[in-house]
Amino acid sequence: MNSIQDQYPDDLAHCFGCGRLNSHGHHLRSFWNGESSEARFTPQPFHTALPGFVNGGVLASLVDCHGTGTAAAAAYRAEGREIGTLPPHRFVTASLRVNYVRPTPLGPELLLRGRVLSISGRKVTVEVTVAAGAQVTVRGEVVAVEMPDSMRPSPVDASP
Amino acid sequence: MNSIQDQYPDDLAHCFGCGRLNSHGHHLRSFWNGESSEARFTPQPFHTALPGFVNGGVLASLVDCHGTGTAAAAAYRAEGREIGTLPPHRFVTASLRVNYVRPTPLGPELLLRGRVLSISGRKVTVEVTVAAGAQVTVRGEVVAVEMPDSMRPSPVDASP
Repeated sequence: MNSIQDQYPDDLAHCFGCGRLNSHGHHLRSFWNGESSEARFTPQPFHTALPGFVNGGVLASLVDCHGTGTAAAAAYRAEGREIGTLPPHRFVTASLRVNYVRPTPLGPELLLRGRVLSISGRKVTVEVTVAAGAQVTVRGEVVAVEMPDSMRPSPVDASP
Repeated sequence: MNSIQDQYPDDLAHCFGCGRLNSHGHHLRSFWNGESSEARFTPQPFHTALPGFVNGGVLASLVDCHGTGTAAAAAYRAEGREIGTLPPHRFVTASLRVNYVRPTPLGPELLLRGRVLSISGRKVTVEVTVAAGAQVTVRGEVVAVEMPDSMRPSPVDASP
């Protein structure tokens, strides 16, 4: 099944957090599950903070990309369009808040859940949690905005 | 010159964001510069968000580790101790706020600056900015707390 991020156009799919075309990075993949969005991620051993625990920067990155992916999916849904149809929705982060409510153990698969709090014009606010097993370890909020034209990749010049 | 993070004890120096002993990661290195702390970081090409711009998750990670490093350094300073003396100060992040005030160009070296806003018991709050050239692109705040005992690595058992 294609994730939300798998359906970003090629020229918008290089993100370190979730881009399928990034040579490194986390390759986070988010999906709708009813009214929520979900992503699963198993950190690598080098994603450590202190021995046995996941690094807060990596967790922030997962929250970030799950938030912007959920925002894009919500924008398509609000328009009654399938994800990946044109013109593309692609969101960037205006602000990110991450509360580390308890240490996140390094080892188990983590489950991210996103919930759209509001859609207003080009801005979507998404609440994201990260859980290890039954325990929520991180609570975040992403204010995502539609990618401004100034960040849009230049089209390939096809003129002679 | 040794950075703040270079002086973390070996068993606390594996952080993905700033650990000198991490096989991957960002290896961020922070230093005092008078009353502020500074770190310089040149993102790799794969640290991209959209083409030409630095990924927000990577920026959050830099803010995070510069904040916790500054917090540790501030705790030593508040006690009139040299960084790296025992017992070690090592801070983890309770919460992180990152405002992306403008897109961060991918290419130039970035300058992070930290400023201690408050020290209260085991909690240090640090304001962090990221600048590309003369332009501040990110404003963040890190609430850092002294590593709880529950996260402290177990000492190697030297008993017979």
